[in-house]
Amino acid sequence: MQAAIIFGSRSDTPVMKKAAEVLREFGVEFSSHILSAHRTPELLRETVGQLEERGVEVIIAGAGLAAHLPGVIASQTLIPVIGVPVASGGLGGLDALLSVVQMPKPVPVATVGVDNGANAGYLACRILALKYPDMKERLRAFESGMRTGYGEIDAGGILL
Amino acid sequence: MQAAIIFGSRSDTPVMKKAAEVLREFGVEFSSHILSAHRTPELLRETVGQLEERGVEVIIAGAGLAAHLPGVIASQTLIPVIGVPVASGGLGGLDALLSVVQMPKPVPVATVGVDNGANAGYLACRILALKYPDMKERLRAFESGMRTGYGEIDAGGILL
Amino acid sequence: MQAAIIFGSRSDTPVMKKAAEVLREFGVEFSSHILSAHRTPELLRETVGQLEERGVEVIIAGAGLAAHLPGVIASQTLIPVIGVPVASGGLGGLDALLSVVQMPKPVPVATVGVDNGANAGYLACRILALKYPDMKERLRAFESGMRTGYGEIDAGGILL
Amino acid sequence: MQAAIIFGSRSDTPVMKKAAEVLREFGVEFSSHILSAHRTPELLRETVGQLEERGVEVIIAGAGLAAHLPGVIASQTLIPVIGVPVASGGLGGLDALLSVVQMPKPVPVATVGVDNGANAGYLACRILALKYPDMKERLRAFESGMRTGYGEIDAGGILL
Amino acid sequence: MQAAIIFGSRSDTPVMKKAAEVLREFGVEFSSHILSAHRTPELLRETVGQLEERGVEVIIAGAGLAAHLPGVIASQTLIPVIGVPVASGGLGGLDALLSVVQMPKPVPVATVGVDNGANAGYLACRILALKYPDMKERLRAFESGMRTGYGEIDAGGILL
Amino acid sequence: MQAAIIFGSRSDTPVMKKAAEVLREFGVEFSSHILSAHRTPELLRETVGQLEERGVEVIIAGAGLAAHLPGVIASQTLIPVIGVPVASGGLGGLDALLSVVQMPKPVPVATVGVDNGANAGYLACRILALKYPDMKERLRAFESGMRTGYGEIDAGGILL
Amino acid sequence: MQAAIIFGSRSDTPVMKKAAEVLREFGVEFSSHILSAHRTPELLRETVGQLEERGVEVIIAGAGLAAHLPGVIASQTLIPVIGVPVASGGLGGLDALLSVVQMPKPVPVATVGVDNGANAGYLACRILALKYPDMKERLRAFESGMRTGYGEIDAGGILL
Amino acid sequence: MQAAIIFGSRSDTPVMKKAAEVLREFGVEFSSHILSAHRTPELLRETVGQLEERGVEVIIAGAGLAAHLPGVIASQTLIPVIGVPVASGGLGGLDALLSVVQMPKPVPVATVGVDNGANAGYLACRILALKYPDMKERLRAFESGMRTGYGEIDAGGILL
Repeated sequence: MQAAIIFGSRSDTPVMKKAAEVLREFGVEFSSHILSAHRTPELLRETVGQLEERGVEVIIAGAGLAAHLPGVIASQTLIPVIGVPVASGGLGGLDALLSVVQMPKPVPVATVGVDNGANAGYLACRILALKYPDMKERLRAFESGMRTGYGEIDAGGILL
Repeated sequence: MQAAIIFGSRSDTPVMKKAAEVLREFGVEFSSHILSAHRTPELLRETVGQLEERGVEVIIAGAGLAAHLPGVIASQTLIPVIGVPVASGGLGGLDALLSVVQMPKPVPVATVGVDNGANAGYLACRILALKYPDMKERLRAFESGMRTGYGEIDAGGILL
Repeated sequence: MQAAIIFGSRSDTPVMKKAAEVLREFGVEFSSHILSAHRTPELLRETVGQLEERGVEVIIAGAGLAAHLPGVIASQTLIPVIGVPVASGGLGGLDALLSVVQMPKPVPVATVGVDNGANAGYLACRILALKYPDMKERLRAFESGMRTGYGEIDAGGILL
Repeated sequence: MQAAIIFGSRSDTPVMKKAAEVLREFGVEFSSHILSAHRTPELLRETVGQLEERGVEVIIAGAGLAAHLPGVIASQTLIPVIGVPVASGGLGGLDALLSVVQMPKPVPVATVGVDNGANAGYLACRILALKYPDMKERLRAFESGMRTGYGEIDAGGILL
Repeated sequence: MQAAIIFGSRSDTPVMKKAAEVLREFGVEFSSHILSAHRTPELLRETVGQLEERGVEVIIAGAGLAAHLPGVIASQTLIPVIGVPVASGGLGGLDALLSVVQMPKPVPVATVGVDNGANAGYLACRILALKYPDMKERLRAFESGMRTGYGEIDAGGILL
Repeated sequence: MQAAIIFGSRSDTPVMKKAAEVLREFGVEFSSHILSAHRTPELLRETVGQLEERGVEVIIAGAGLAAHLPGVIASQTLIPVIGVPVASGGLGGLDALLSVVQMPKPVPVATVGVDNGANAGYLACRILALKYPDMKERLRAFESGMRTGYGEIDAGGILL
Repeated sequence: MQAAIIFGSRSDTPVMKKAAEVLREFGVEFSSHILSAHRTPELLRETVGQLEERGVEVIIAGAGLAAHLPGVIASQTLIPVIGVPVASGGLGGLDALLSVVQMPKPVPVATVGVDNGANAGYLACRILALKYPDMKERLRAFESGMRTGYGEIDAGGILL
Repeated sequence: MQAAIIFGSRSDTPVMKKAAEVLREFGVEFSSHILSAHRTPELLRETVGQLEERGVEVIIAGAGLAAHLPGVIASQTLIPVIGVPVASGGLGGLDALLSVVQMPKPVPVATVGVDNGANAGYLACRILALKYPDMKERLRAFESGMRTGYGEIDAGGILL
């Protein structure tokens, strides 16, 4: 299971790190790339071509502001692209969200929530599970574990 | 290749039809369901369970307003869920978009643009292509065909 | 008088605490639950069923982001559900507000302002006062007390 | 079971009519009032006083633009007030929504979605069911009936 | 020249203080009042009546969230009301702005920018200058003074 | 009592007409001007100077898009300027509203709601009433008349 | 004086036509291209390269939704790119505006207003006037002509 | 190569400094001016006239709130004006962005992103390169240098 994480700026690292942590937790190998749709368009195109050759099966791409990166990648490959809008500046990520999700047909980006790198990782795993029964098992195990910490809480009024 | 299209209200039909057309064009079989996260929560849960048994590999879900349907489905299955926010009323679909895309971890919805049923279909095909080399071929063929109609236009000033 | 407070994440505690304080002040017993519409859908459904059996008469539910929790609870019970949108991330709670308030008919959520846990508590009391004359008395007493601190202020220019 | 429907302008009629239809369907008696928080503040205050004397148990109030009506009513009575933001003009009802829902404590308005008069009616019924077991029965009967028209649809591709 | 400053909560003080400072600077007497459209509706009505009797000629009113205060005052008097939307919470004052400015006819509020108490003061002075030639003189003197600090700056690159 | 109505484009006529009708109804003389802050800056400046000489006491200015006109006029005169944001294009007048109301100190524009030319007229009358007791009388007479059509409505269910 | 107009879809024609009309009026030669950043990335890149060779000095690019086209062009050439956000769908062009204007440094797009193709044309002329004194003359002549139709209007009350 | 940087308030300095740094880096001489469209309209007009005489070829103008400065300058000269919306207050710069970019025809402002002074500088350089081949060379050299720091990153997981 091969993935790639691509993001536009070193300042996106904290958000993309959450995607990386999920991929690691579920045993997905991935390469990481800082590439810009605008500053390094050719290096981006070359890299996307190499990812196809390497057999990468899902790409997670994050960017802020006029976040073109996920859409531009999706126009260069048929590998499913998961887009992570990164909040930056006063508009709270609304600019990045709209720039990522409102892609015209037939070039979709599978968009997750603003700054939600973790969900990009989980979505990648769900997509990989289509092909890899192992991954489906891991997700199922994770799912049953994720319910701890929920339920009725302090009648004693400690929390509320 | 098995998919399912689920939407919350008959009024979402024009948007979801565009997803259906893409699936048909690419040879993906699918069942269609009108189900509501709020009006038929149990029927929804049962149906999602049956889709898993039938071997459905990707679900396209559309809804308007406080569009919970895609997220609620994603919480009931590990099948990748593609969410289509449907515009309705004065807020232009911003309510549906935020209700679909801002899902908390670890329950992602692969969100496409407002009313963009077609892109939901194309994203489903990209995801299925992970497993089905045939689909990849069809997408490639489609891609080379999609460039007609582009290029330099009327020096004679007919269009502009 | 029995209520329940349900919220989706430990990070919502400061907001929900304000609801709890109002309920306590007005003598409403309540249980507190951390439950997620997406992570613990079955435990949520069971709990809502038990609340009905226990005779709970009003439910306060809070969540952030794509805040489905109040609406999902309202689809599982006829008990009135008060929804508290919780701000989190860059969109200032607009995402949560729209996800809570824009519920399709016939599944309403009685929505209060963003992060306004206190108003959820007061609304619960107003609803309970329909049935419990005692509560109406308490609200009336509170109301007459709430006017202290208002009126004409410092001619001496200390405040302004 | 006594309710009242109050709205600020004859142009709000189509939205408020949907609330009236639900109340009628569930056997709730109600009076209807066109009253403005700004044009007829005294008549509004008098009317709210009379509603209390008549034993009205829930008030549905709708308004557009800077929609103060529901909040102003809620400041004049302890009867629960359900607010319906009415869309008008280019802002799509966002102005009315924020003016209704963002009420400061301790004066809550139980807000429903923009133009969603029907949900105001259903919420009124849920609140009345707290005290009137008959209403709870009617809501339950309605709920089981509301699932027709849902389920798997046309394999033949007529709808999609 | 008599004015009044009314605001809904002690937390609005820093914004309203800026209005007070301008009024003082231009020799306008004013009284200050903390009054709430929702918590002290009767005291508000009485106070507005007294302001009319005292000969107050302009009212500055500020509030946050669903900021009804300026509009409610404007519905109780014919004195011009200047509204100051106060930002509070995650929506950046958009809620207060829309609640203040979108008043239905024929009850206008002369709205200034979010948190812009100073401009409320200047607007009050402009309105008073209609009647008081002295005020016009003071505004003119102020205007000629307000241009210091403008012009070409540091060729030496100290500032930029 | 002299006023002036200034607007930027013939397409703003329907909105500004409502202001004119109110002024006429209350006996305010006014001149009308189509002038643009951007296309005719010098003619605008000259006109504003002449309005001052003519003794104009209040200016109503309307514009759409990046609606600079009211603010630019306010920077050229001390006469109170009432700004009317005019909706045009897809942003529903939010662009015009923010361009009019968010004026920096010390140059206020008394802003009314989007497209609300009538309220601009009423605000002008309130301001003029400061100086002209006659106007106050007319406003009072109008106010008592404006309550017809309000009150309890059809028990027979004709309206609702 | 050579320009190019590039847009993403035939549906953008009415907006881009306004740019073309201005260019023609001011004697700027231009070629027109329908090219998509996402559907025809390679043809776009080739075309931009050819435009450079042909000596094109300014590019006008328009697109809707997640409008990447202007930014992607700006990343492929040093020719100044003027971006026209085109409104489409329920968000009124806010998505296109943010996708065009919020470009990260150092790849600027000179953005004009939503659907404002004409201003793109005028901005192109202003930029060309830097180098071509003729153009400056034409703009000056146009400017003096553009003031007709402004000034004081109907005292007779025909317009207002 | 002569430019000018004009901004409305000392508080805009950090944003405009970024524009100045880019101009310096690329050898563009510039003068800096603090001037307000509203507080110093005449000084602004005089200055713009002098800039024309001095042969200034591009103007960068920044402002916050109802940011009229760039548009007002563009109405006083045919020199291309680059507008920088500056964020200030709770609306995150949306007010400034709309006030700058939504200029009516035929007075365009070449708008860059919120607070993006650097991009204003780069856009100025691109425009100047139209006339000055030297500048084109510098931009090309800069462009090849700007790709350092991009590419595949830490397989060792140090960054992600």
